[in-house]
Amino acid sequence: MTSPAQQTALAYFEAWTNHDLDGAMAYVAEDVVCDAPAGRIEGAAAYRAFMAPFVGTLKNASLIASFGDDRTAVVVYDTETVPVPSAPAAECVTVVAGKITHSRFIFDRAPFDAARLRASGGRNAGS
Amino acid sequence: MTSPAQQTALAYFEAWTNHDLDGAMAYVAEDVVCDAPAGRIEGAAAYRAFMAPFVGTLKNASLIASFGDDRTAVVVYDTETVPVPSAPAAECVTVVAGKITHSRFIFDRAPFDAARLRASGGRNAGS
Repeated sequence: MTSPAQQTALAYFEAWTNHDLDGAMAYVAEDVVCDAPAGRIEGAAAYRAFMAPFVGTLKNASLIASFGDDRTAVVVYDTETVPVPSAPAAECVTVVAGKITHSRFIFDRAPFDAARLRASGGRNAGS
Repeated sequence: MTSPAQQTALAYFEAWTNHDLDGAMAYVAEDVVCDAPAGRIEGAAAYRAFMAPFVGTLKNASLIASFGDDRTAVVVYDTETVPVPSAPAAECVTVVAGKITHSRFIFDRAPFDAARLRASGGRNAGS
């Protein structure tokens, strides 16, 4: 019942949520393109640099849903990190030959921005 | 190939992205619970009040992916609204008897917050 793209997406998810970023990167193509909230990330090195700080603060992750077909998979999950107790996210990935070549990464930056402002002693300017 | 939950999620998506909020609410249960970035929304009336301003500013929406099974569906899409030119979102919904009873709604609030600050003449406090 688990599609090929979903298998790759779930193996990737299992690895990084267990703090195994090297293992996770084995499922990411060298020329990966990731459309994240802050903009586009291109290439495996940049993608790893983007993920590392997040994985470093990760306390827990739980899968909410995953689906896929031969080429596309969606993984929805919740994360608990040091700065943000609950940050749900969705990743919609394209998988070619067992590697993620494109990722559309959706999450709410607002609680991370607010935590950063608190940590810096600033005030949230949001009304 | 389209699962029952996915059919409901897509019919709902078609309706609200065509500015038919009444039609969309026909697929939403009276006691719907929606976990959105800003918190939990309970009941169809509150859910409609939450969606109305967003639908009011919607210029375009495009489906990125949808998957589902008997009970759960995920819809990933991009939206163009008056304040934000591209705001991708994911909805992971539970469907019972053709109605959405739970929705996990994931999107990035940051560009909407920034647009609101600009509109109010404020400055974005983010560094």
